[in-house]
Amino acid sequence: MNLKQMVGEKAAEYIKEGMVVGLGTGSTAYYMVEALGRRVNEGLNIIGVTTSTRTKEQAEGLGIPLKSVDEVDVIDITIDGADEISRDFQGIKGGGGALLFEKIVADYSKKVIWIVDESKMVDELGAFPLPIEVMPYGSLQLFKIFEAKGYQPEFRLDEAGEKYVTDGGHLLIDLNMKEIKEPHALATWLDGLTGVVEHGLFLDRVNTVIVGYENGPVVKEVR
Amino acid sequence: MNLKQMVGEKAAEYIKEGMVVGLGTGSTAYYMVEALGRRVNEGLNIIGVTTSTRTKEQAEGLGIPLKSVDEVDVIDITIDGADEISRDFQGIKGGGGALLFEKIVADYSKKVIWIVDESKMVDELGAFPLPIEVMPYGSLQLFKIFEAKGYQPEFRLDEAGEKYVTDGGHLLIDLNMKEIKEPHALATWLDGLTGVVEHGLFLDRVNTVIVGYENGPVVKEVR
Repeated sequence: MNLKQMVGEKAAEYIKEGMVVGLGTGSTAYYMVEALGRRVNEGLNIIGVTTSTRTKEQAEGLGIPLKSVDEVDVIDITIDGADEISRDFQGIKGGGGALLFEKIVADYSKKVIWIVDESKMVDELGAFPLPIEVMPYGSLQLFKIFEAKGYQPEFRLDEAGEKYVTDGGHLLIDLNMKEIKEPHALATWLDGLTGVVEHGLFLDRVNTVIVGYENGPVVKEVR
Repeated sequence: MNLKQMVGEKAAEYIKEGMVVGLGTGSTAYYMVEALGRRVNEGLNIIGVTTSTRTKEQAEGLGIPLKSVDEVDVIDITIDGADEISRDFQGIKGGGGALLFEKIVADYSKKVIWIVDESKMVDELGAFPLPIEVMPYGSLQLFKIFEAKGYQPEFRLDEAGEKYVTDGGHLLIDLNMKEIKEPHALATWLDGLTGVVEHGLFLDRVNTVIVGYENGPVVKEVR
């Protein structure tokens, strides 16, 4: 079993009868959704809230009942991957392009679990490019602002080499910052930039991290 | 001549040969664009940058050459309306539904002029409903947050009674706050809310305000 599958299946054990469950996006969340689908087929009653069209299609294919984030009062638990988790459990997400919907679903969740293989655990954020979801109109101006800051921006491209368009109809600019010394200050600056819809810094947002190591999953209770 | 037409035509005088000009949206900006169109037809060379599909159609009809905000280096001057301007020249915009594109264009402008009739000048912001541009996904959850704060939110509706969709593909929630004591703190809080794309507080953004009174326009240099 690979490490992503290991933590995906471990996380699925947290889901109990009757829960509303936020379903993350990406290669690790994929295994969690697969494991959840098997449990639903064995009789578990839950409602899923998806974070992307990709996860929606996967969950529908597995017969998991779904609702929109606006059709539920609160989400009991959200399980999602992460691209980088620092020693103090701050995260970068959005490598899969679904950061906006992932952050929306996480914000209305009582408990957030991130599942990662050990390669995602880092001392400090920033080696992984930080995704910024931006309005198409004005995106070249934002690009220039990031460039002037030395953040080495790149527009995310799709398989056809065109600018990647998110589920929300926006573009993604990846910032190659190498290291992020003050993630909270950076987040506040990005929040205030006109045309930035959302960014991939997920700060003070995770409750439990499950890390896959060769000799088994390790559960870290964060807050 | 009505007051909106008076300040619209007064503002058009600020536009000089060769300028890149941000063209606002709304009933007052309309008159400025009309006046500018007449000058273009008389031989003035300028490039317009529009803030909405509505203004784009008007400007195209008048023969004003247009570029996107991403096709210019900088905008020399942007002229736009406002829904409310406080004694310290902070503003609420977005009554016309174009606040996101208006704020993007204003942010890349060397000089911003607001043109209003005297009814828009207030002591303190907040009698005019504050428009919030939000992602459709999660918008009911945001609505509940605003409701819990006592901000009396209402979804903006279009003429058919459906939720109004902005040029950016988002929804608008109008907050009936009555008074806004601390606009900067409110703006920071809104900026940090996931799913809020932009809001109608335009703070520390205007350079010149032209106010139309019955006995003539008054120009106020702000900063």
